[in-house]
Amino acid sequence: MTASGSPTTTGGVTTPLGFRASGTSAGIKAKGLDLALLVSDAPAAAAAVFTVNKAQAAPVVVSREHLARSGGTVRAIVVNSGCANACTGDEGMSAAREMAGETARLVGCPAEQVLVASTGVIGVALPMAKIKAALPQAFALLASDQGPQAARAIMTTDPFPKEAAAQLTIGGREVTIGGMAKGSGMIEPMLATMLAFVTTDAAVPQPLLRRALTEAVHDSFNAITVDGECSTNDTVMLLANGQSGATIGDADYSAFVRGLRTVCLELALGIVRGGEGATKLVTVTVSGAASDDEARRTAKAIANSLLVKTAIHGGDPNWGRLIAVAGRAGVAFDLQRAKVAIGPTVLFEKGRPYDERAPEAAENLKRKELAISVDLGAGSAMSTVYTCDLSAEYVRINADYRT
Amino acid sequence: MTASGSPTTTGGVTTPLGFRASGTSAGIKAKGLDLALLVSDAPAAAAAVFTVNKAQAAPVVVSREHLARSGGTVRAIVVNSGCANACTGDEGMSAAREMAGETARLVGCPAEQVLVASTGVIGVALPMAKIKAALPQAFALLASDQGPQAARAIMTTDPFPKEAAAQLTIGGREVTIGGMAKGSGMIEPMLATMLAFVTTDAAVPQPLLRRALTEAVHDSFNAITVDGECSTNDTVMLLANGQSGATIGDADYSAFVRGLRTVCLELALGIVRGGEGATKLVTVTVSGAASDDEARRTAKAIANSLLVKTAIHGGDPNWGRLIAVAGRAGVAFDLQRAKVAIGPTVLFEKGRPYDERAPEAAENLKRKELAISVDLGAGSAMSTVYTCDLSAEYVRINADYRT
Repeated sequence: MTASGSPTTTGGVTTPLGFRASGTSAGIKAKGLDLALLVSDAPAAAAAVFTVNKAQAAPVVVSREHLARSGGTVRAIVVNSGCANACTGDEGMSAAREMAGETARLVGCPAEQVLVASTGVIGVALPMAKIKAALPQAFALLASDQGPQAARAIMTTDPFPKEAAAQLTIGGREVTIGGMAKGSGMIEPMLATMLAFVTTDAAVPQPLLRRALTEAVHDSFNAITVDGECSTNDTVMLLANGQSGATIGDADYSAFVRGLRTVCLELALGIVRGGEGATKLVTVTVSGAASDDEARRTAKAIANSLLVKTAIHGGDPNWGRLIAVAGRAGVAFDLQRAKVAIGPTVLFEKGRPYDERAPEAAENLKRKELAISVDLGAGSAMSTVYTCDLSAEYVRINADYRT
Repeated sequence: MTASGSPTTTGGVTTPLGFRASGTSAGIKAKGLDLALLVSDAPAAAAAVFTVNKAQAAPVVVSREHLARSGGTVRAIVVNSGCANACTGDEGMSAAREMAGETARLVGCPAEQVLVASTGVIGVALPMAKIKAALPQAFALLASDQGPQAARAIMTTDPFPKEAAAQLTIGGREVTIGGMAKGSGMIEPMLATMLAFVTTDAAVPQPLLRRALTEAVHDSFNAITVDGECSTNDTVMLLANGQSGATIGDADYSAFVRGLRTVCLELALGIVRGGEGATKLVTVTVSGAASDDEARRTAKAIANSLLVKTAIHGGDPNWGRLIAVAGRAGVAFDLQRAKVAIGPTVLFEKGRPYDERAPEAAENLKRKELAISVDLGAGSAMSTVYTCDLSAEYVRINADYRT
């Protein structure tokens, strides 16, 4: 089979065939939607990646268990916002299991075919009575046009919902990949977490599905940073239900990953654009590295540097800070061959600064979306990560919440 | 020999016998003192530690060379502020050599017995004509009571000078250790660098001196962080001239290191107290780690976390952020045995939160100097690091310089 078609980015988790979703209000948050349900009409192959944080929240532990026990076959995902169910001990584990169990009862499938996710306050018990009371309504509201409601129900303090979709043609059949995500850094004290849920109506064998998700996440969700934090609940889940009639094999794998990456990247960039206090989306590309790992590590160091992020916020074409961060990143680096550019404007090259170009570089920094590139002069590997600027608003949001 | 005496912290680089210093204005900065000279009357044993940043400034490269060539015997240190002489290519190397050479000519010693240091703007040529013109006056002003002037001359945008001294008795003789430092993060765009200069009138054999400096720096300058950045010029230099008549041997080594650590820590804490936008000095202690390295790594991760630093600034006793950062630090961590305290108030222990104590913890956070402790529940190693809070003023300082 061959693949064609250019991916687009309209739609969400219910754009692929055979998925229904809903968003409802269980009263976990003071107001607004806070319970999302996503159901595949047919059993779907599932893959997921979870936070590497060692303080893993109960829903992360339970979803891992369920994926293992079900052999990666999933019918539904249930998500609440307003409470992370993290650092909640045995009680939290029981609550996460009950949330999955109740959903399974409504959907009519084994409990292990339901995955759970939570986002919100850490260290507070999940209000299971409210969730149990709301689940029948969440089930009743399920529809193939309710993806946008589900995308709203998983938000905590996100400034806007994040949805994306891509279409491709596999062996003459149209395949759709859709997704939703939430997160904008730990934007409020004790509110955390990046969550993303991606669906496709292609049939994808389990091992390929896992590999595809890992590859797509590497260049999307794992390539963004708002504040360098990794929460207790971070989760990306992918369901493939085969309802399009197309099956992904080795020949179509690359095309499928490209489509999946498009959806994941669009969702991931939405998280950065909506980062706390963010006013700019910054693409940081590090080239000339001795290895992919060193390229990524340096790009992350630049993207997380307070000095870089504040300089970008202030529109200051401060190439000295970029050199200094590259130099301290613990990677191979040759100052004589290094090169720094802001937008297309080269400010340092072959040991020589070009300060006369600072006004031009300052103009580039005024854009809402801009690029920074650093060549380490030490090899041929390259990596791109995405970040936002750091504003005084970030500090206000994160410091002044309770006072 | 035995050692006694409790270290104090008054005095500076000229408090030990046989050291003279001066601070003068060479016109490198728009105004104020910007050239410091420190001379030992007798040849002194010298040890130094330099930045691990791979974009090493010219004075760092030249000082390393001189230490190697002189076999660690030093007569003088010359320091300028206002220009870092970093990323300045061959011209910068020549300038750093000329700065040492001119100083050596005045002092009457070989060039390699002079160390150099610079701090200020990156990527701008050192104005050697101004420095050469000012050096004779700097030499003429040398006096044993001019340490405070030297401490002022090495400042860039530090809010106050940093000086400290300690006395100890070694074999019946009084030994003094004195020091000065500058740095408050990269407080202004392209102004960087932590510099510290420590003197003692004890005689200390070279190998012991190097070991003592490494040990003392580990628990002081290497245990602080303002913004997680490591500059192109960071330098700590230690001179021991033996003018007290006391010689440090193996028996007194521990007492000497204690004294040296006292001086280094006082200087290092001064840098944190004067960190950009800082309003609080925060001691972060991580215990229960599987190794010293993991303890230090976790303490640094907490001390550099934007979410932790903003929560402290806002007086928010946000233990969930401390757990989340410890969990993502990549170290052994047992959530069921972990413990988190703000001041003496335990907020999380054995998997259970104590949110009813939040008001008490919030009171602790109101102090100008406060402690945070996290037990990882995974071993018995411990580490302490020092940091400051992150305020909107930090962003203003670093973002709004040129705009």
